[in-house]
Amino acid sequence: MELDFTKLDGLVPAVIQDAASGEVLMLGFMNADSYAATRASGEVTFFSRSRNKLWRKGEQSGHVLRVRDIRVDCDVDALLIRVDALGPGVCHEGYRSCFFRELLPSGESKVIAERTFDPNAVYGKESQR
Amino acid sequence: MELDFTKLDGLVPAVIQDAASGEVLMLGFMNADSYAATRASGEVTFFSRSRNKLWRKGEQSGHVLRVRDIRVDCDVDALLIRVDALGPGVCHEGYRSCFFRELLPSGESKVIAERTFDPNAVYGKESQR
Repeated sequence: MELDFTKLDGLVPAVIQDAASGEVLMLGFMNADSYAATRASGEVTFFSRSRNKLWRKGEQSGHVLRVRDIRVDCDVDALLIRVDALGPGVCHEGYRSCFFRELLPSGESKVIAERTFDPNAVYGKESQR
Repeated sequence: MELDFTKLDGLVPAVIQDAASGEVLMLGFMNADSYAATRASGEVTFFSRSRNKLWRKGEQSGHVLRVRDIRVDCDVDALLIRVDALGPGVCHEGYRSCFFRELLPSGESKVIAERTFDPNAVYGKESQR
């Protein structure tokens, strides 16, 4: 089965779900190379659109995402990756999940989670994640 | 808070999660109009890339996705929408979730879910979902 990378110029979205809790931790993008790297290493490796290169999640923070299994959707153009998340969180802002804000109907947002780590201590002044 | 629609030519990915079970049901895309329609109706409305128009999920099948809440990620370019899923499933192939196949390291896929409805009875010969 071949993934369909054609709809987003070589990328597919990958939803990352905590295998134990079911929490959706983040969404990233993969190209064919990052998918292959994820398979080869057993650790989630995205393609960073902003840095235009492969990005092994946790390469700086140590907050690695170990692959439990990978599911594909009916159109073969999206992935659901269930992981064991090492460390206290995946978000560069210091939260367990990148989805730490609720968007209210008014258009305002509300933080709905507690910080699980100090992002400055983990990431320093660099923006690499 | 303004969603960032610039990274994917006017779209953001929206992960749909069953609010009760935590199961990830599908991934779709929204443009600004479909996000507004989702807010106004309380029912998930995507932008269909293949049909180039708004697509209220369940408009044909009746398998509507009622919005419980909407979360946004740290980069404001992805949504996590928790829903009450009406009906037996969201997938046009007759499964509860569109992610009904596991992708094996070999490249082959394996169906890991049972069909919950007969897609021909629900969708007939049309491809509209």
